[in-house]
Amino acid sequence: MNNYKTIGIIGGMGPLATYDLAEKILNNTVASCDQDNIPVLIDCNTRIADRTAAILHGGDDPQPEMKKSAKRLETAGADVLMMACNTAHYFYDSICEDISIPVLHMPRLTAQHLLNMGVKKAGILATDGTCQSGVYGDALKEAGIESVYPSGEKQKLIMSLIYDHVKAGIMDFSDLDIDGIIAEMQEKGAETLILGCTELPVAFDLIGKTALPTVDPTVVLARAAVSFAGAPLKEIQK
Amino acid sequence: MNNYKTIGIIGGMGPLATYDLAEKILNNTVASCDQDNIPVLIDCNTRIADRTAAILHGGDDPQPEMKKSAKRLETAGADVLMMACNTAHYFYDSICEDISIPVLHMPRLTAQHLLNMGVKKAGILATDGTCQSGVYGDALKEAGIESVYPSGEKQKLIMSLIYDHVKAGIMDFSDLDIDGIIAEMQEKGAETLILGCTELPVAFDLIGKTALPTVDPTVVLARAAVSFAGAPLKEIQK
Repeated sequence: MNNYKTIGIIGGMGPLATYDLAEKILNNTVASCDQDNIPVLIDCNTRIADRTAAILHGGDDPQPEMKKSAKRLETAGADVLMMACNTAHYFYDSICEDISIPVLHMPRLTAQHLLNMGVKKAGILATDGTCQSGVYGDALKEAGIESVYPSGEKQKLIMSLIYDHVKAGIMDFSDLDIDGIIAEMQEKGAETLILGCTELPVAFDLIGKTALPTVDPTVVLARAAVSFAGAPLKEIQK
Repeated sequence: MNNYKTIGIIGGMGPLATYDLAEKILNNTVASCDQDNIPVLIDCNTRIADRTAAILHGGDDPQPEMKKSAKRLETAGADVLMMACNTAHYFYDSICEDISIPVLHMPRLTAQHLLNMGVKKAGILATDGTCQSGVYGDALKEAGIESVYPSGEKQKLIMSLIYDHVKAGIMDFSDLDIDGIIAEMQEKGAETLILGCTELPVAFDLIGKTALPTVDPTVVLARAAVSFAGAPLKEIQK
């Protein structure tokens, strides 16, 4: 029986991204049998309202259900909490309010990861909601890293990549000028690109090598979770 | 906000099979946004001891941790429980003892599914542990369905397919006479094959069309879970 700490995932934002985070925790842990893995509690709470709609368009407040999930996971025995949804971090302080266990902060961990790599300026690729909420911009600023965003036209292509392609299951991106987006980020001085939406690593895995390196915040979060739990970390990221 | 019942998964047996079941629940639910999906609680309890070792070789008892997970999920608000592990159903009665919510029984649901299809004799492909524990044989017998197993030599090939190939990530099965296994099952009168180990649907997806139809108990369980929760079921199985 292992003595690893128990990881809790406030999930449902979205459900697939939740299970993807859980699988990345598995893939980044050295384990040769079921019992070598970290215990994980997942609350895939599909009653949490849409985060982007709440931030940008005055939609239903997602906070009451997020707080319920946090409390439920703490009561069930989680030692640390985390969320796979980038945009959800806009509500981070509210989630922490009623619990006494720590919540890992994906954008801040990503900023710290970039700082450790010596990055001074990063490009943020994400939904309009994540960009405008400032979750990545603020985290990078705190780490002393400058952030750059795609211009209006290029941002529309990112939104199309996320919504019209990956979320719709259409994996042919030839109608989108991806190279043009990356070239613009490069012109603006970005040294690396943050794939700040859970759909983007799926797309960039298919796109292959690009002119700028990319970082997947879900992998950064998964690896931080493995370390926090006290389990041995795999050397090569997956 | 949806009014679906909450599904609880006693997980960790193994962790990947746990997330695969959760994804099959997603894939079998009609949903156009996060909030259309069923709330799911997962306790990926990697402290549960190996089931096969306990049944066949007097290994550590998995029941105390299984019972803890069941209780934890009930307390957290689950309306129904289930497990992705075929062998774990050997301990079904013990898991049900201290809780008042139902636990879906994967082998019995599979037997019911075969009965509805008019099957009179089914071939069981599974680990030695699952075969010898009788979890499928008993469930089929209750449904009035006869069960047949591979002979000793063929059973060794099934074990190699599970342990030396899928679990080891070696997806070239050309050294194994899979057609021979299926031919033997056909000679013994099997009308369909139960893929009674979570590694086998992975292998059979790659093997493609076989002389006998196959049934994946995890899909049967996932679809029963969607119905129990009260959500609309997708017409085509995935």
